[in-house]
Amino acid sequence: MPPTITEHEFKAHCRTTPQDDDKDETDLHLYRMTRYSDGTVKLRNSNIELMDQDILYHLALGSESHDLQEMFGDVKFVCMGGTPKRMENFAHFIMDEIGYKLPAGTQLQDISAYSYRYSMYKVGPVLSVSHGMGTPSVSILMHEMIKLMYHAKCIDPIFIRIGTCGGIGVEGGTVIITDDALDGQLRNSHEFTILGETVHRPAKLDKKLARELKSLASADDPYDTIIGKTLCTNDFYEGQGRLDGAFCEFTEADKLNYLEKLRDNGVVNIEMESTIFAALTHHAGIKAAVVCVALLNRLNGDQVNAPKEVMHEWQQRPQILVSRYIRKVLAQHGQLKSLFGHQGSIKSPRRFKLVQQESQAHD
Amino acid sequence: MPPTITEHEFKAHCRTTPQDDDKDETDLHLYRMTRYSDGTVKLRNSNIELMDQDILYHLALGSESHDLQEMFGDVKFVCMGGTPKRMENFAHFIMDEIGYKLPAGTQLQDISAYSYRYSMYKVGPVLSVSHGMGTPSVSILMHEMIKLMYHAKCIDPIFIRIGTCGGIGVEGGTVIITDDALDGQLRNSHEFTILGETVHRPAKLDKKLARELKSLASADDPYDTIIGKTLCTNDFYEGQGRLDGAFCEFTEADKLNYLEKLRDNGVVNIEMESTIFAALTHHAGIKAAVVCVALLNRLNGDQVNAPKEVMHEWQQRPQILVSRYIRKVLAQHGQLKSLFGHQGSIKSPRRFKLVQQESQAHD
Repeated sequence: MPPTITEHEFKAHCRTTPQDDDKDETDLHLYRMTRYSDGTVKLRNSNIELMDQDILYHLALGSESHDLQEMFGDVKFVCMGGTPKRMENFAHFIMDEIGYKLPAGTQLQDISAYSYRYSMYKVGPVLSVSHGMGTPSVSILMHEMIKLMYHAKCIDPIFIRIGTCGGIGVEGGTVIITDDALDGQLRNSHEFTILGETVHRPAKLDKKLARELKSLASADDPYDTIIGKTLCTNDFYEGQGRLDGAFCEFTEADKLNYLEKLRDNGVVNIEMESTIFAALTHHAGIKAAVVCVALLNRLNGDQVNAPKEVMHEWQQRPQILVSRYIRKVLAQHGQLKSLFGHQGSIKSPRRFKLVQQESQAHD
Repeated sequence: MPPTITEHEFKAHCRTTPQDDDKDETDLHLYRMTRYSDGTVKLRNSNIELMDQDILYHLALGSESHDLQEMFGDVKFVCMGGTPKRMENFAHFIMDEIGYKLPAGTQLQDISAYSYRYSMYKVGPVLSVSHGMGTPSVSILMHEMIKLMYHAKCIDPIFIRIGTCGGIGVEGGTVIITDDALDGQLRNSHEFTILGETVHRPAKLDKKLARELKSLASADDPYDTIIGKTLCTNDFYEGQGRLDGAFCEFTEADKLNYLEKLRDNGVVNIEMESTIFAALTHHAGIKAAVVCVALLNRLNGDQVNAPKEVMHEWQQRPQILVSRYIRKVLAQHGQLKSLFGHQGSIKSPRRFKLVQQESQAHD
């Protein structure tokens, strides 16, 4: 349940005008194309406001079937990642981290369950959404999430992808914040085919946001958090120079030459979603970041061999960093306290446990 | 439970040698690269047999953790589609259609549940697997499914994609069998980036299989089943000329010109998976087909507006066609009878219902 008392206040606090953000002329132009004067998201597609209804087909939501402003108007952070499971876990994690309390007798619900495609959970100002694997899957989601921000009149939402990746010269467990997202030809753009024509859009992420995320890494973290370039591929096997796909038409030496070429170009990790995520958020004037954990160092091999428990702990690391950022922003705007202020339903975890055990004994 | 008594017999029956199939010299060469002398799947990657274990990471299976030959050796048909839900439905549908009986007290299990990525169900000789949306997601699955066929020593498996699509000049509900899969530039190939180099592989499907599927459409079907060219795009909105994405930088006239150009080139439908599915099955020497149902006629609009019940019925149509094909092949090889021969657990549905009601009353 959003803390409605502070919602308007929060929105006013959260607005980052271009001046605040040291934006240059181009940024200012982009900002004006993508924001109304009250800071709410404006679409670069005038067709939408002329439509009777806009069905967000892959989210199982619609502009006339749902009151999207009532449901999503308070959203400030849209966090995305590959699998429904990881994003469900993140929703529960961030709920604890920001002290968000659900009303008694309620639980989180997968808002997009009936789409059978993506999963979406809402925890106050945070949306946690799965995007599937690969740029086309992310593309569909991004179009509909940006339209959702518009219909809901969200103010300056921030999009963050929380992912997994292969590291280049970095150990498994390292957290990597993407500086620039590169395509297979090492271009800092994403290639679109629109009406049969090839169009490139810059795959730009917010450098200030990347630095801010980096600054939240703690010296006590038992792992490194770095910033670097990310290669985005359309395949996990041949496309990432793996020797262990169904096909392999190159040698191990070819592979290592390629990975070393990537390293020489400043690439520290490889995944499959960053260019489209960066290109579409940038085109929509939305601040965005990509934070991934490396599951292995590709210079040492192809298969992911870390034990399940280790992998599980590694996957929490980007979530922890993003959670620090969300807490910081909410605290800056006085909202963290208002969320924490809600009384939870468990007064004593010890006694709660006893009551559960007693109850189970009476079956 | 696979009918083990007839398994070897069935495999021998099912082998389609190149001679049987009117294959030309090129086909014969491809066949020899992709099949052992006993007809089992051979990989075009010699690294795999040298590995201690091969983890099929996105399927939650491994060559040493699982007895893949015991589990999957009898697989003849691999059916794939976008969502886990549709493929779970197809698994139950095909179970009824081929009369496959589960042992008492068992139910279908999602074999890949722990991958949190794809869902896979096995019904005797049929696998029903979800592939997500877009070519990269299909690419990962195809590499691992082809490796699975190899590890399981499957004989001449047939891969069929069962999908949904937008029609071009055909009404919603029409079933479309893909003749040729075309990329965004209308090329009959899929573009790969391997070690930074661009590689095109032919997006060839099996023409004979397409014709055979078409021949199984019935004059009594209250819908058309056609063969035509399929455009495969990397996006649902701008990539398919939709006016209703988060961005739109073309006019309705531009869009209609484009769709008419597609129609003039013989394109009857648009989806997002066919080129990679065709290119990777062809490269692996696996017979494959794509059967989709159109959810709308794109010449009339962009949004999918058919009611849920209608959409649900439409999505069954490709499943019905594929089921007719599977039944026909199994019947030709004497296996349909052996599957039907198993005694099911319900002798009288009417009495079964009564027992259920009685049982529920005693709570």
